[in-house]
Parts: sequence; structure tokens; C-alpha cells
Amino acid sequence: MSDPHVRITDAGMTFESRLADVIADARKRAQRFSSSYAQLWESLEHMATGGKKIRPRMLIDAYEALGGVDERSAIEAACAIELLHMTLVIHDDVIDKDLMRRGEMNISGRFASEAMLEGIPRRDAHSWGEASSILAGDLTLTMAHSLLARLEVQESTRRAILDVFDETVFESAAGEHHDVWLSMHLQNASPDDVLTMIEQKTAVYSFQAPLLFAAILAGAAPSLVDELRVISRAIGVIYQLRDDVLGLFGDERNTGKSTLSDLREGKETLLIAYARADASWSEVAPFFGDSSLTSAEADQLRRVIEESGARVFVESLITERCQQAHQLISDAALPPGLREQLNTLTAACNLRAS
Amino acid sequence: MSDPHVRITDAGMTFESRLADVIADARKRAQRFSSSYAQLWESLEHMATGGKKIRPRMLIDAYEALGGVDERSAIEAACAIELLHMTLVIHDDVIDKDLMRRGEMNISGRFASEAMLEGIPRRDAHSWGEASSILAGDLTLTMAHSLLARLEVQESTRRAILDVFDETVFESAAGEHHDVWLSMHLQNASPDDVLTMIEQKTAVYSFQAPLLFAAILAGAAPSLVDELRVISRAIGVIYQLRDDVLGLFGDERNTGKSTLSDLREGKETLLIAYARADASWSEVAPFFGDSSLTSAEADQLRRVIEESGARVFVESLITERCQQAHQLISDAALPPGLREQLNTLTAACNLRAS
Repeated sequence: MSDPHVRITDAGMTFESRLADVIADARKRAQRFSSSYAQLWESLEHMATGGKKIRPRMLIDAYEALGGVDERSAIEAACAIELLHMTLVIHDDVIDKDLMRRGEMNISGRFASEAMLEGIPRRDAHSWGEASSILAGDLTLTMAHSLLARLEVQESTRRAILDVFDETVFESAAGEHHDVWLSMHLQNASPDDVLTMIEQKTAVYSFQAPLLFAAILAGAAPSLVDELRVISRAIGVIYQLRDDVLGLFGDERNTGKSTLSDLREGKETLLIAYARADASWSEVAPFFGDSSLTSAEADQLRRVIEESGARVFVESLITERCQQAHQLISDAALPPGLREQLNTLTAACNLRAS
Repeated sequence: MSDPHVRITDAGMTFESRLADVIADARKRAQRFSSSYAQLWESLEHMATGGKKIRPRMLIDAYEALGGVDERSAIEAACAIELLHMTLVIHDDVIDKDLMRRGEMNISGRFASEAMLEGIPRRDAHSWGEASSILAGDLTLTMAHSLLARLEVQESTRRAILDVFDETVFESAAGEHHDVWLSMHLQNASPDDVLTMIEQKTAVYSFQAPLLFAAILAGAAPSLVDELRVISRAIGVIYQLRDDVLGLFGDERNTGKSTLSDLREGKETLLIAYARADASWSEVAPFFGDSSLTSAEADQLRRVIEESGARVFVESLITERCQQAHQLISDAALPPGLREQLNTLTAACNLRAS
């Protein structure tokens, strides 16, 4: 969603190279324990090289736009943000019992399939995969904390960063917990429930934390930090709403994600919360959350969702939220470079390849 | 395992009151998110009031014996150690798919059973319990890091504490990972494999970390820190070997733990690693790890283990390790109060109520 970055510090370090280094160092230390523990770190090394790195890039761009000059601290914070992202993704996959992510096996999938090849029964192999993921997430979370606790900045700055990080974990966990609750469908989630959950689960760690880290490290005024808090949450909701639309109606070749998975999983998106109120939902309700859902059944579900007006509703909400975000960005006392970055980010969250 | 402690600081704070306060504060903040998130924190509050608090007490006793005077820092570190213990216990229960701990429902058990009462199907209710536990462990781990990152001590001391904590998480995860691997029984574990796993999984976080924290915070010489590293690991292994013997041959009324659970779970203890080499093991091998194991079958298993000489072997190893530990304690340049504490600790780890 933005240009490729090559960020050079005095030591020629980029956040990619720094992240690769800290994980490689751990992998080397892990070899002294057991080969499977080293493999766990290899999986994390592999995972860290993938993805679009939206969050750390956002942080470093904003830091520079805000006139920050201590690139090394920004890189440490960017690595911590990416490690938190890895933690949440890894543990979310355990919670959802997923073995795949973005078209390839995740940590659970790798460890389970390798164990099965070695003759371990399926059930034990799955437990092994799950255990590996739970521990992997604990390790990446520890590494994120570790980098931030050691930031070489003024004590008040370091404390402010730690506060944001702790609040981020606290609120993201609240959002994830609520998401799992909604997906059990004890009550039908209202659109407001879903919007709140999205903000907590995704917007806070993916947008608020990187931008607040950038502002705090760059020594921005508290009023600017407050403005970025509001703006980043607004952008984060747009990002997730677009993601949910693409998850149902996108082109798998572009998104890299099956348009069956959200439906099979019974993911409680705003589209579903809206469509559920439609009379024809009852026709397709049994398909929703069916892990063996066929393409034909998914097409039926999509038709009912479309005809309920859910897609039009969510698209109009995205448009409205984009306008609000641009207005917030325009009203805030931002340096021009950051204003441009945030406008571009908002547009990119909305207009991703479908 | 030691006298009841009432530790008074200038503010009248004990580690128990401090731990209760930080969790209660989080529970109050959680109420703003959802009632189930507040409930998750209530479960943590409940959990934090239980247990023997061996680790934080050990830390505070050692800190005082070493002449430490900044009680407040010792209390923060003691809380972090207890929070790490909670994290590892919570995530270990998810890994083992346990719903009970020490005779009462754990977090997974509580959330699952409550969801079932509300009409959620069993499978979904279990996923809800598991999700709650995974997030709970992430939150306690974050809180532990958070307390240590904010320690108000000299920067070099804070860094040394952070180093020990990170290494502790790293090695404990290695031990847990190896334990899960051994419990799949792809290869038969050797006694040495089991002893190494015990040291990594239990001794490091339960004994080494509290004693090293105490020494570092009290400003002990590096040579003393190194001696405590060796002594604490030795004591930790004794503790776990005794625990494993009690888990099979103990009196449930005293231990509070069923003597069936380790056998049903297929826990790879030193007793098992030894007994497995005996010819008569094959008679009972199918019972080991059978989740529906009966009392009669457990008795048969216990008889084979006993007759293989495993119990005598482990008891003699415990005796030998105790002698070694006392020797290490005697040889080290320790203040008399700490020497006495460590001798008492060693004896208490061995001679627990059976």
C-alpha cells in the first residue's frame, strides 16, 4: 500500500533486517535446546519475512513525516509492532483452529503435518501443532515487550510507549474475546457490536499503535497524539470493513484468501450482521459457519447477503467513514507530509485490489 | 513450604496486595469493554488469590537475606514472577486440554461450562473456554513484562532483570515444547532427556528466576548470581522429581491432585522413562495415556512401575540430588540467612506431604 522502503540508518539497518536479526539470533540460541525448538524459531523467521509489513512501514513513514531523527528507536518500535501482529495472528489461528494462512500452512499446520509424516496419530499431531503455536505466540509477545523495554530514549518517552503498548494488548484481547463471543451467535450481533469489535480487535493494534508510537518517539505534542488516536481508529475500521467485503466478494487471485473461509468459519462481519435481519436469511442460515460449505452453497449465501442490501450498506458506510477520516485529517494540526501519508493510507485501505 | 509472610513496606504493601491491586485495576478497566472480558479478569483475580505463592515468597525471602532494602522493587519482581507462573499454567492447561486444576475448574473449564449453561453447543463452548485461556495467558504475560519494564532501579539493574526474564521465558518455552514432544512418545525418552526437560520447563522459572531476581535487585556480586543459578536449578529438579512421585504414589487428600491424572495424560516423567525399559512394561503400556483409565488399571500400572525399580531409582536420585544441592549451598559464598533459606527450601522440596 505504499512504495517499497529501504531505510538506511548509520549502521545500514532497516526494520526488516533488524527483525530478521533478532529472530535469527533466537533461532541460533534455540539450537542448543532441541531441534524442534529451533524449527519453531525457523517458522517464525519464515513468517517474519512474509506479509506486507503495513504496520511497521506506517510507523516509520509517520516518524519521518513528524521530523523524528532517531531512526534506531523507530526501527525497534516497528519491530515490536510487527512482533505483536505475529503474536495476535498466531494465537488467533489457534483460537479459530486454522492450519492455513494466506495460502500456506501456518505454524500449527507445519508442525502437525510434519508429525503425521513421522507417524504420530492425527489427534496428537494436531495437539503438537497447537502447542507449538501457543508457545510461538508467547515468544513473539515476549520479544516485542523486550525491544520496547530496552528503548534508549528519555524515561518519560519510554514510559509513554510502554503505556500505549500495554493498552494495545489489553484492548486487542478485549476485541478478540468479543469476536469469539459474537461468532458463537448466542445473540445476533448488532451492526454497532460488530463495529466496536472491529475497532478494538484490529484498528487499535494495526493503526493506532504504530501511529502513536511514531508520534511519541518523534516528540509530538500531546494534542497531536490525541488527534492521531481518533484518526487511526477511523482508518482501521475502514481497513477491516473493506477486508470483510473482499473476504466475501473479492478475487482470490488478488487477495490471496479463499472467499469460502469467512463463511465456513461463521465470521461475524458487518455484512452478516446486516443480512441476518433479512427475511431470506433463514433459507441460508444453516450454511453459515458450516465448515464443509460447498461453492454452490456459498454462492447462495452471497446472493442472499447481496439481495439483503448488506453489501450496498457496507459500501456506503465505507464511503461515509472515508469522508469522515479525510475530514479529521484535514482538521488536525498535522505536518503536511503526515497529512498526505494519512490521506493516502485511508484511500489505500478503501481501494485495495478486489 | 515456609512461614506465613506479612511483608510491610512504607505503604503497607505486600506482594499479595500489590498483585491483587494490579489485577483488580485491569478488571475494572475491562468492564468498559464487555461483561465477558470483565469475567476473564475476575477469573484471573480468583486464580491470583490461590496457590502457595512459593515463587514470590522465595524471591522476597532471598532479597531480605541478601540485605536488599528496596522492598517495593522486590514486590514488583515477585508479582511478575507469579504472573509468569500464571501464564505458563494457563497455557499449559490449554496445551494439555485440561479443564480442571487442583480440584477446581480452570479458566477454560469455567468459560466452557458457563457457555453450555447458556445453551452453546459443547464444541463451541470448549473453543470459547480455550480462547479465553489463550488470551488470559497473553494478558498475564504482558502484565509481568509491564511491571519489570517499569522497575524504578538503576538502568543496569533493570537491564539485568529484563535479561533474566527473557531468558526464563525462552528456556521455559523450550522445556514445554520438549515435554509435549516427549509425551507423543515417538521415541522413548531417556532419563537424561526427562531430567533436562524438567530443568528447562520447571526449575528455570520456578527457582532460578526468583532467586536471580532477588540477587540482582539486592546488588549481589556476579559470582553469587552465578552460584545461585546452579543451586536454583538443582533444587528445581528435586522439586519436580518429588512432584512426579507424589503424582503417582501420593495421597490425594494431601496433594490435592488425583493420582490418575498423570497416568491418563501420559505424562513423560522419570518414573515412566525408567519403567519403560522393563520387560513387564508391555503388559500395561496400553493403559498409559488412556484418558479413560480406571483405578484398577492405574493400580496395575503403578505395580509395574514399582516392580521395575523406577520408584527406588527416582527416590535414590532425589536423595543424591539433595546431597549435591546441600553441598553446593555449603560451598557457595552465601550470607548465613540465605544459606539457611536454601537448605530449608531443598528439604521442603523433597519432604513434601505425601
